[in-house]
Amino acid sequence: MNNLNFKIEKYKKDFDYSYTLGLFPTFEMIKNTDCAFLIVLSSKLTKSKDVEKLIKLAKEKKIPVEENDKLINKLSDKENCFVVGLFKKYQSKIINANKNLVLVNPSDMGNLGTIMRTTLGFGIKNLVLIEPCVDYFSPKVVRASMGAVFSLNIKKFNSVQEYLKWSKNKKFFFMLQASKVLGSFVPPKSNFDLVFGNEASGLPEYLLNEDESVIIKHNKDIDSLNLPISVGIALYEFCK
Amino acid sequence: MNNLNFKIEKYKKDFDYSYTLGLFPTFEMIKNTDCAFLIVLSSKLTKSKDVEKLIKLAKEKKIPVEENDKLINKLSDKENCFVVGLFKKYQSKIINANKNLVLVNPSDMGNLGTIMRTTLGFGIKNLVLIEPCVDYFSPKVVRASMGAVFSLNIKKFNSVQEYLKWSKNKKFFFMLQASKVLGSFVPPKSNFDLVFGNEASGLPEYLLNEDESVIIKHNKDIDSLNLPISVGIALYEFCK
Repeated sequence: MNNLNFKIEKYKKDFDYSYTLGLFPTFEMIKNTDCAFLIVLSSKLTKSKDVEKLIKLAKEKKIPVEENDKLINKLSDKENCFVVGLFKKYQSKIINANKNLVLVNPSDMGNLGTIMRTTLGFGIKNLVLIEPCVDYFSPKVVRASMGAVFSLNIKKFNSVQEYLKWSKNKKFFFMLQASKVLGSFVPPKSNFDLVFGNEASGLPEYLLNEDESVIIKHNKDIDSLNLPISVGIALYEFCK
Repeated sequence: MNNLNFKIEKYKKDFDYSYTLGLFPTFEMIKNTDCAFLIVLSSKLTKSKDVEKLIKLAKEKKIPVEENDKLINKLSDKENCFVVGLFKKYQSKIINANKNLVLVNPSDMGNLGTIMRTTLGFGIKNLVLIEPCVDYFSPKVVRASMGAVFSLNIKKFNSVQEYLKWSKNKKFFFMLQASKVLGSFVPPKSNFDLVFGNEASGLPEYLLNEDESVIIKHNKDIDSLNLPISVGIALYEFCK
């Protein structure tokens, strides 16, 4: 049993807490935020330098650590998960909006996590999400992000219109209908937004008339590149 | 019941047949190969132009088409799968090896499928896989590839050494330990191989001394880019 005054359950979207699965994302979470309230270890966890580092950091930050196989089995679907980090969901803020990655209606948790990790790796700290959008604190997203979610500033809007009003940056809309080809122009060094649409439906067509629309050229043997690949290529080209 | 002289079962690796799940990959399979032996439709399938096209092409190629909800439910885990295409596994050949994408020990089915789709989209038709390697005809890979697997020439080797002996191309090994940065040199237009390692372990270090090793620069906030993203960026840079 843990010492919390409520029972921890398998994640649901309306919970005000969520959790990291695995050593690496748990460490990233404790390191980069103050939202952790309990670290759970499996009795099968092999002690290593990384584990010691995690426990030490948890102690410094006064986060309780307990061994609890039953709780781990309850929260994780995978058998090889030996560390779980419970955290309270929080709202982050975008303070310096000089570069934003913007996702309109992302619908796949794995994709969102992968995109978070890639975005952080290319030095963009701001992620804008436009509803409807998958739950970005869901354990699946957190896992796919490898903990990158805890280093990003995330802002949500209810509509594209709200976002367009908010951002003063030059916007690059990635669309199959665009005529400007990625790689054929010199991207700005700062004050830009890279905007991507939903996995299946892309961006709404009226955005062709806003700022710049861009296409990543590929041949006709495929319908489209998948979303994380497109985002990765755009980030590479804009941030290199 | 179908008219085949054997009972169709849920896929296992040692089967000599596999299947596509969904309309789009099934169409790609029939269009690009002669390996299909049965098309199964759900009674819930809404007739559309694409469905008509599929049925017409199957007729032309003398592939039987039958409605069989029981079989679809048996083969597909998802409820929204209305078309299944059964095919006999086959061996393809690399005839013109002027550009190859090489994956050493890929271990994730979704990743392999995504990479196939991206590779085809950037005009590389040859995929070299080095064992141990996930089963590339598994329904999961086929689905993630969106049928691209049927347009690629795929060759397997048992070891990196065998592959190194076989390919005469200039080889670019993508490694975190490399010093040459992608984007800092002009890639050759042809006769090159792009070589990537396993998702978790990367390429063996001795390859640093072979031909060229290349790194895709990212910052230290993340450990590494994920494999399909790295492949996508490399393909973009080499094929643009």
